[in-house]
Amino acid sequence: MTGPAGTGPVRRGRGRPSRTETAAAPATRDRILEAAREEFSERGYEKTSVRGIAKAAGVDSALVHHYFGTKEQVFESAIEIVFAPALNAPETIAQGPREGVGERLARFFLGVWENPTTRTPLLAILRSAVNNETAAAVFRRLIATQLLRRISGQLDLPDAELRAELAAAQMVGVALLRHVIKVEPIASADLEELVARLAPVVQGHLTRP
Amino acid sequence: MTGPAGTGPVRRGRGRPSRTETAAAPATRDRILEAAREEFSERGYEKTSVRGIAKAAGVDSALVHHYFGTKEQVFESAIEIVFAPALNAPETIAQGPREGVGERLARFFLGVWENPTTRTPLLAILRSAVNNETAAAVFRRLIATQLLRRISGQLDLPDAELRAELAAAQMVGVALLRHVIKVEPIASADLEELVARLAPVVQGHLTRP
Repeated sequence: MTGPAGTGPVRRGRGRPSRTETAAAPATRDRILEAAREEFSERGYEKTSVRGIAKAAGVDSALVHHYFGTKEQVFESAIEIVFAPALNAPETIAQGPREGVGERLARFFLGVWENPTTRTPLLAILRSAVNNETAAAVFRRLIATQLLRRISGQLDLPDAELRAELAAAQMVGVALLRHVIKVEPIASADLEELVARLAPVVQGHLTRP
Repeated sequence: MTGPAGTGPVRRGRGRPSRTETAAAPATRDRILEAAREEFSERGYEKTSVRGIAKAAGVDSALVHHYFGTKEQVFESAIEIVFAPALNAPETIAQGPREGVGERLARFFLGVWENPTTRTPLLAILRSAVNNETAAAVFRRLIATQLLRRISGQLDLPDAELRAELAAAQMVGVALLRHVIKVEPIASADLEELVARLAPVVQGHLTRP
């Protein structure tokens, strides 16, 4: 969901700013979203407040409400951006030979978690959704309306959505043990070794007849 | 710890409890642990207090401290019991034919999550460990000292611990999406279908050369 080129994503909801405001605001809006991702990832959904996000971004709380609406809407906007590369990725990933899709997907997914910058919003989603039903509902909605619909459009197999979720479960489980719980030996395992071990599993879930 | 049973509620006196007091304790201890699991699973580690656990169990906070020590120690005792069946399970599971170990393990693990009674302590661990480093450390310690050592003793393959964790990652990921995030279609998928889809994955992680 993107707006006119250069204005960044258009926000839904009551606090939606006018075109003019949107055009002027990108730096502030980005700063607020950045602060929101930091806050949500460190504290989880419940303990994060719009006030805290505003403070971290160096703006007034009213401005956060003005651009994004409620805390739930701030959360949705903050994590939506994480889905942008993920949404484009399946198309790129699906373009290569079918038998390599498992490896490409495993490499992409684990790579996103290796990088601290891209890991932050993922941690925000995971920590929040595990502990708060509102955050879980936002996460479910994004998965259902955006990710699964695309994936099932690309996999012409029965149960494409379930297949995609089982593959995701394997990768999310690895991310959880490696980056959140940090249990050894998976926490220190070589990335290439993990990709090699996950590739056939992801491939199997997605393409096994 | 033996003695006449049924001496009524134990009250903390000065110092250690007498023989008689200790004898009455198992029921109270169990009630405290039960309350602790409920509290930790609903609120997560950080928001759970010894005071809240005591209140839920209908005892004084001092008694909780007396039996279990700090909040961290209460948490460890509360979740340790979850590992008891899990620790015995691998032995039973490993006893059948090697080629069926993936299915037996997948069925056991998913089954534990299907039952609300056994799901509660697992949710307590997951919610707490995802959001709190102390809880994560307790979880890591239990995994490392108890679960992995046993599993690697049974799998005579290189990287037995990493293999076990990759299999666990697949199953934990499914539990997360199905029972915590509750995303469809995996949330409503038939248990037998999930077992059938996970069995070859778990089998592959554990036994693929």
